[in-house]
Amino acid sequence: MSTFEMIQAAANRLEGHAVKTPLLSSPFLDDIAGRPLFVKAECLQRTGSFKFRGAWSAISALSDDERKSGVIAFSSGNHAQGIALAASLHGIPSVIIMPEDAPKVKIENTKALGAEVVLFDRETEDRDTVAARVNVDRGLMLVKPFDNAQVIAGQGTIGLEIAEQAAAANVTDADVLVCCGGGGLTSGIALALEKAAPDFTVHPCEPKDFDDVTRSLKSGKIETNTRLSGSLCDAIITPSPGEMTFPILKRLCGGGIVVTEDECLHAMALAFDRLKIVVEPGGAAALAAALFHGDAINADAVIAVTTGGNVDASVFKMALKKYGGKA
Amino acid sequence: MSTFEMIQAAANRLEGHAVKTPLLSSPFLDDIAGRPLFVKAECLQRTGSFKFRGAWSAISALSDDERKSGVIAFSSGNHAQGIALAASLHGIPSVIIMPEDAPKVKIENTKALGAEVVLFDRETEDRDTVAARVNVDRGLMLVKPFDNAQVIAGQGTIGLEIAEQAAAANVTDADVLVCCGGGGLTSGIALALEKAAPDFTVHPCEPKDFDDVTRSLKSGKIETNTRLSGSLCDAIITPSPGEMTFPILKRLCGGGIVVTEDECLHAMALAFDRLKIVVEPGGAAALAAALFHGDAINADAVIAVTTGGNVDASVFKMALKKYGGKA
Repeated sequence: MSTFEMIQAAANRLEGHAVKTPLLSSPFLDDIAGRPLFVKAECLQRTGSFKFRGAWSAISALSDDERKSGVIAFSSGNHAQGIALAASLHGIPSVIIMPEDAPKVKIENTKALGAEVVLFDRETEDRDTVAARVNVDRGLMLVKPFDNAQVIAGQGTIGLEIAEQAAAANVTDADVLVCCGGGGLTSGIALALEKAAPDFTVHPCEPKDFDDVTRSLKSGKIETNTRLSGSLCDAIITPSPGEMTFPILKRLCGGGIVVTEDECLHAMALAFDRLKIVVEPGGAAALAAALFHGDAINADAVIAVTTGGNVDASVFKMALKKYGGKA
Repeated sequence: MSTFEMIQAAANRLEGHAVKTPLLSSPFLDDIAGRPLFVKAECLQRTGSFKFRGAWSAISALSDDERKSGVIAFSSGNHAQGIALAASLHGIPSVIIMPEDAPKVKIENTKALGAEVVLFDRETEDRDTVAARVNVDRGLMLVKPFDNAQVIAGQGTIGLEIAEQAAAANVTDADVLVCCGGGGLTSGIALALEKAAPDFTVHPCEPKDFDDVTRSLKSGKIETNTRLSGSLCDAIITPSPGEMTFPILKRLCGGGIVVTEDECLHAMALAFDRLKIVVEPGGAAALAAALFHGDAINADAVIAVTTGGNVDASVFKMALKKYGGKA
């Protein structure tokens, strides 16, 4: 079970290893959002996504003995890169189990960061079975992408930074929008803000047709997605909220916000134009919600976390072609 | 005359108003550069370039009486946006004199940030004459883009941050590469590092055919460019180093490094792929030098300042088409 104290301890372990990402803004985006909009640019994190924080937190929390034979993880891509780099920097091996349909850029980067990559078919194979088999064979420590207390604590360090940076910008009343897959980041941020900025409300943001968390929060029990592929927002597609994350989300979050893929592409183009950051479709869901779903936001200001930037050039060019270059 | 103490004072005035931009890195870029490479991502600054710092510094240093009727500036674009926003945030008017061939995005943004824009033809008209006329007519304070001690001090705050962030990353020996137009940023950073990181050497970086500073440093006197337009790197094209900046550059800098436009486009694509930042061609000159001119670098590590991100989508797509999407 993750706690505020674990998040503070994770922040200490991350010091000097993770980027303290900036809180960005633009008067042009304020105009579209209809209120002051701040973007926590976590796409600038090492390996291009927030996942490095959780990976570093989990690996650095292991004992030397637990850590020495290496770690294993399964991931649609960003967790993979985070684990691969964090393991390499700790001087230990990593094995990453990835779906075959993950973006090529993510598979290649994961290998280049020092990991051994094992591919599987996510429509026909069960990830846990594959992971367990490899784990047993090699004696590696499994680091789950969200249902792991130290991973949640690592992601929660973003919440500590948001509280500090929002206070410096004189923001006292804000809704905090977070791109949500299994809920590790969202629950970590919610736990951090519960103590560090108790007036802020966290809202998970998801793509249409993959809104398991939003539906789960509505029904009060864990709901699942019918499909697991076929979305540009691949980075935040998971079957359902986690067993460890959902109780936290249920206790602390406001309602979910559902956005379209086109809104994500539009948000990517605006982030290019106005903030000079590269955001992947799934990493733009919260920004899309902040820009285009103002009716779901109650606070004076809105803070959106752009969670990743690992996008193929072809998809990025499509976003610019469709929505960019107007300004 | 700018001093280290003026830079420290400017840093205090900028606190809470400018973004403390992150120092980014990627093992993939280290491999290409052949040494640890750090990028000071100043393209993430408000208005998309470092110019906001100098603008805020200069305007905030004026007395209430000097400031109240407003400010005037001339600029190829980034200084314009910096002045426009800094003036608006101070609640004063601004008039910006811009060349007709400046990128449309910069002209439109400058207007949207609250400035009155006056266009001129930079091949046939003299900017100073236009500026002086409007100045006399309206009683506005002229803020020159680089030959202004408070502007240099404002840009120098980047040097203070580099010294602090490099120390946190355990970098003790580095060459610092800076995209250089009139030399305001380069001289400001050099002045800051002279005290804050005296072992670091600053190198101005310029595009081929517009290497006035590099030639001036070689000859020991101010040299000029024969052309002033026709470069993708428009943001850093100036006739010659400034009267105020050149003596500082001469006293403190190592040799200049000259890069090609194609190297800048390649650096832009790599910054997209590996750092998730948007860099304009002129703002990528120092990164291009760090990546592709390692023979001009002597230190163990290299720090490149990406100075701006105000690039039209069409130029950005060209960079991605030519050099992106490989990774």
